[in-house]
Amino acid sequence: MIEITLKDGNKMEVEKGTSILEIAKKISEGLARNATCGEIDGEIKDLRYQVNEDCELIIHTFSDEDLEGKKAYWHTTSHIMAQAVKRLFPNAKFAIGPSIENGFYYDFDVENPFTDEDKAKIEEEMKKIIKEDIKIERFSLPKNEALKLMQDQPYKQELIKELPEGEEISFYQQGDFTDLCAGPHLQSTGKVKSIKILSSSGAYWRGNEKNKMLQRIYGISFPKASMLEEYLDFLEDAKQRDHRKIGKELDLFCFSDYVGGGLPLYTPKGTIVKEELQKEVERICRKYGFQKVSCPSLANITLFQTSGHAQKFDDELFRVSSKKGHDFVLKPVQCPHHTQLFASKQRSYKDLPIRYMESDKQYRAELQGSVGGLSRVYAITVEDGHSFCRVDQVKDEVINMCKIIKDFYTKMGLWNDHWVSLSVRDYEHPEKYIGSEEDWNICEQMLQEVSDELQLEAKRCEGEAALYGPKLDFMFKDAMKREVQIPTVQLDFSTPKRFGLFYIDKNGEKQTPVMVHRAILGSYERFLALMLENTKGALPIWLSPVQVKILPISDKQLDYCKEIKEEIEEAGIRVELDDRNEKVGYKIREAQIQKVPYMLVIGDKEKEAGEITVRSRISGDLGNMDLEDFIEKIQNQIKNRQ
Amino acid sequence: MIEITLKDGNKMEVEKGTSILEIAKKISEGLARNATCGEIDGEIKDLRYQVNEDCELIIHTFSDEDLEGKKAYWHTTSHIMAQAVKRLFPNAKFAIGPSIENGFYYDFDVENPFTDEDKAKIEEEMKKIIKEDIKIERFSLPKNEALKLMQDQPYKQELIKELPEGEEISFYQQGDFTDLCAGPHLQSTGKVKSIKILSSSGAYWRGNEKNKMLQRIYGISFPKASMLEEYLDFLEDAKQRDHRKIGKELDLFCFSDYVGGGLPLYTPKGTIVKEELQKEVERICRKYGFQKVSCPSLANITLFQTSGHAQKFDDELFRVSSKKGHDFVLKPVQCPHHTQLFASKQRSYKDLPIRYMESDKQYRAELQGSVGGLSRVYAITVEDGHSFCRVDQVKDEVINMCKIIKDFYTKMGLWNDHWVSLSVRDYEHPEKYIGSEEDWNICEQMLQEVSDELQLEAKRCEGEAALYGPKLDFMFKDAMKREVQIPTVQLDFSTPKRFGLFYIDKNGEKQTPVMVHRAILGSYERFLALMLENTKGALPIWLSPVQVKILPISDKQLDYCKEIKEEIEEAGIRVELDDRNEKVGYKIREAQIQKVPYMLVIGDKEKEAGEITVRSRISGDLGNMDLEDFIEKIQNQIKNRQ
Repeated sequence: MIEITLKDGNKMEVEKGTSILEIAKKISEGLARNATCGEIDGEIKDLRYQVNEDCELIIHTFSDEDLEGKKAYWHTTSHIMAQAVKRLFPNAKFAIGPSIENGFYYDFDVENPFTDEDKAKIEEEMKKIIKEDIKIERFSLPKNEALKLMQDQPYKQELIKELPEGEEISFYQQGDFTDLCAGPHLQSTGKVKSIKILSSSGAYWRGNEKNKMLQRIYGISFPKASMLEEYLDFLEDAKQRDHRKIGKELDLFCFSDYVGGGLPLYTPKGTIVKEELQKEVERICRKYGFQKVSCPSLANITLFQTSGHAQKFDDELFRVSSKKGHDFVLKPVQCPHHTQLFASKQRSYKDLPIRYMESDKQYRAELQGSVGGLSRVYAITVEDGHSFCRVDQVKDEVINMCKIIKDFYTKMGLWNDHWVSLSVRDYEHPEKYIGSEEDWNICEQMLQEVSDELQLEAKRCEGEAALYGPKLDFMFKDAMKREVQIPTVQLDFSTPKRFGLFYIDKNGEKQTPVMVHRAILGSYERFLALMLENTKGALPIWLSPVQVKILPISDKQLDYCKEIKEEIEEAGIRVELDDRNEKVGYKIREAQIQKVPYMLVIGDKEKEAGEITVRSRISGDLGNMDLEDFIEKIQNQIKNRQ
Repeated sequence: MIEITLKDGNKMEVEKGTSILEIAKKISEGLARNATCGEIDGEIKDLRYQVNEDCELIIHTFSDEDLEGKKAYWHTTSHIMAQAVKRLFPNAKFAIGPSIENGFYYDFDVENPFTDEDKAKIEEEMKKIIKEDIKIERFSLPKNEALKLMQDQPYKQELIKELPEGEEISFYQQGDFTDLCAGPHLQSTGKVKSIKILSSSGAYWRGNEKNKMLQRIYGISFPKASMLEEYLDFLEDAKQRDHRKIGKELDLFCFSDYVGGGLPLYTPKGTIVKEELQKEVERICRKYGFQKVSCPSLANITLFQTSGHAQKFDDELFRVSSKKGHDFVLKPVQCPHHTQLFASKQRSYKDLPIRYMESDKQYRAELQGSVGGLSRVYAITVEDGHSFCRVDQVKDEVINMCKIIKDFYTKMGLWNDHWVSLSVRDYEHPEKYIGSEEDWNICEQMLQEVSDELQLEAKRCEGEAALYGPKLDFMFKDAMKREVQIPTVQLDFSTPKRFGLFYIDKNGEKQTPVMVHRAILGSYERFLALMLENTKGALPIWLSPVQVKILPISDKQLDYCKEIKEEIEEAGIRVELDDRNEKVGYKIREAQIQKVPYMLVIGDKEKEAGEITVRSRISGDLGNMDLEDFIEKIQNQIKNRQ
């Protein structure tokens, strides 16, 4: 426990690691009833906030860990924006305005989409409201009075109606603006410093395209102007790295209105990249004893009821029906199908471990407003794997999988900057999980041992376990310094029991196997997005859809270029010939934009000498070379995954 | 026209190729009003039947073309079976009893499933009914009287209620048994000669698992006892070749009650076979300029409404929904998605042809009672391809595709026994198709030219065209002498127009491309079933999941065997080591059942000499060999697809 002394003399004790939000609640409800969550001030050892004279929390800089403080800061700014809109568009109806990963948004029901001019006006008005430093006050009402207060706001009314009966409903008021809100908020509008409206777009009420289209405005705010500037620079860089932009430039994938959002179509080039990734991860996993299997996308719902997924992910399940009375679900995960492959034959203790892997589409009914690019789609192609083993083999299996992860991520250049989470239960809410406490204890202990043996230095993260067991999650940093969690190793004593899986042990008796889940590359969609953003599209040569591009200076070298092309092709290298009647400088620029690793510029000189002139996308002109030497060099680079 | 003289002196003229059914109708409705369709007597030139003294058609042998005659014969036998059931189980309710591809079935609502004893009794009773030679008579009733007649038969009542108002409803009566039936039937029960009840099973009323489970009995009948014997021999052979049996023996795929019928799961071995097939067909297609793409399984229904598939295949569509209000369909075909890839960029005339291929799952809501094995499943993995080209390129594209088909099917050993159908419109029902008459004429003419140029000798088959255009269908014979239609090349001027696809021609103007559809291998499920049945599981070595199995005589050779295994594995050959503590004879028998092409039997002698003893699944012992020579031999066989 840590003691905090508040300036009014009161003291409070909190546990190490208590979140800002919880402390703010304690302050506002207990020791200093009128205080609200305030600003965040740098990193203080053990606790990352200060408490000022008015018993407010003071937060001056954001760090990744200051999540709760950020939330309150941005949520408050979204109310300031809503207040500005109310002043400028008195007929606007208000939907919701949460803080998000970066900043906040608010959805408004207005007659016309906001113009750039509108947004500039709203930003001005927000600045005024900040200057006015209006006090933000919380109050509660019973349901009927809450409905009355919000009688002109149909969206708020809908939300209030869904709240449980008998509970007091909380509101936050700042001058002429009151909003239905659970809080917490800063103490006054003046606590917000630098703001910026970032963009606006249409968004369906509740993300459902059958509902009305609302107008969403995104914004951000910071305690210091310099932080805002830094963030806008970061945004500009992110724009350059945006995988959607790169995917279009490199012609890797596309979308179609006929097909619908959240459903990317891979072009021939995108398909090459996806397949190369798949071949690589499968090659490594095969080395470690994984065998490929192939399961259907559909199943009776009983499969997922038995596994527990149907109950847990009910809202995310896609149901499949037909005029002939079929009733299936689209698989949201592969694990239950893999149990059925295991169960298809009698297994002996000598047969174990049995390791299956599969790269197939998994389906999740994401919110319609939330899909976009490759990062959030309805069908993710997941590279999934499971090992069915004896209890005495579990540790080796986990170690085996950790080695695959290290192998793959080292190749991808991401291993250096990583940490490992030992994701265990939320001990206060055992009802969120399936399986016996005993099994959970054994599993958590075993993962701790693996972490110690492999010197993973895993941090224990409570409440981060999977439905059926604890796991090791590997966290990396992408080029934007964002944390990315992809690979994972999960222990599962529960699923095999639920499906009645068994093997015959040495004594001829039935035993339940353990299931170890693992993801290496995760979903191809997200991994591809990550790779594109990390490399700004300059994929390593083995992943490049076009590895070499031949650029003749004029038609006179076309025959020679075709000969070269054939030879390169026969060496198994992906090569294209740009035979368009364009200047070679133009062709080079285009190949450069398409991030082709090597360009061969062929003029009369090269043709006569029977040579090639090589350009690299990174180092520029590499001079003349023998074709065979060039091919050998490239083959080595591809083979070594350089 | 051919003239037939009937024994009563009447003559009738029929066109060459008129079906038995039509002639039977003519006889019964015209020249000899009381006659019914009778027996079939061998093959007579031009017309394959005779007419006897009573103006009945006499048919003694079945040939593939005598489809209509067979139908009447088997349908009559199904009524005989129903009559027998009525006599033995007076409370039975009768559902339907059609003729099928081989024989017939009848569905009964009875208290308990039929036992073997029941079936023997029914067969005896059928023989009695045949001996009684009861006259079969047709009569018609208006709907209300039809309902009254069938008042004890709820299934018949349901069927009658669905018939159009005002139409006379026909029945067939044979002594104490009357059935709702459109006919035609033989003249009397005595016309049926040799009968056999084959099997029985549960079957949902109307194939819908929400309905009651009925009891189905399958049977067959023939005009001669020798034909029945021949057929039962054939059935026994078919049983040996049944891909479901082989699939289980070879551990290639399985089913799970949790997942549901019609949804096969591929084991590691089955996945290898499927992937090898895929690699092979893609390798050949790549040579001919096809590029792989990858599209989602879901789409908005507008995609298929625009293509016309939603209207045409409404009953077969799987609809996808969620609690969040999503409304998608599972793709029943790939073509519309591929149009969207074409449309994702502006295309120039120089870019064409653009050829896409994709092996992905397609979904059809098959009747729930009809799915089974790999032949009929809810999700077939289809190897599909499309070329988008200019009109002046179409012919070359079709020729290109025909060459791929020849290439692939020659490798599969199926090319020798084939014929080609030029499948054109049903000219009397143009409403069944989409697209303009002019386009259809051009397309049909073009395919005729390709057939002439490639000497395909395509037979013109009316009414066999696809929704959007005519096609060349390639027909093969499987090992059971059944006709198999898989590869196809289809012209389509219509779909590109419906999606507004265009390219920019030499003059900078927009032009609509032509779409050429092609399937080479068709669906992996059906092709795999075909390969398994043709080879009785002894797949060619390149397709075999295990190519070499090492069988040590005792534990003493294990180390040496492991060395050998590693060397073979490194040569890219799929090898297994049977290290179980079993006699080598037992191990050989097992490997033989699993149709492993080569077995290496390793004892002390081989270990000391550093050699191997090779057994082939076909030729048995091949004697001693150098490991390197063996590897080279196998590699060549694999490379040459022997």
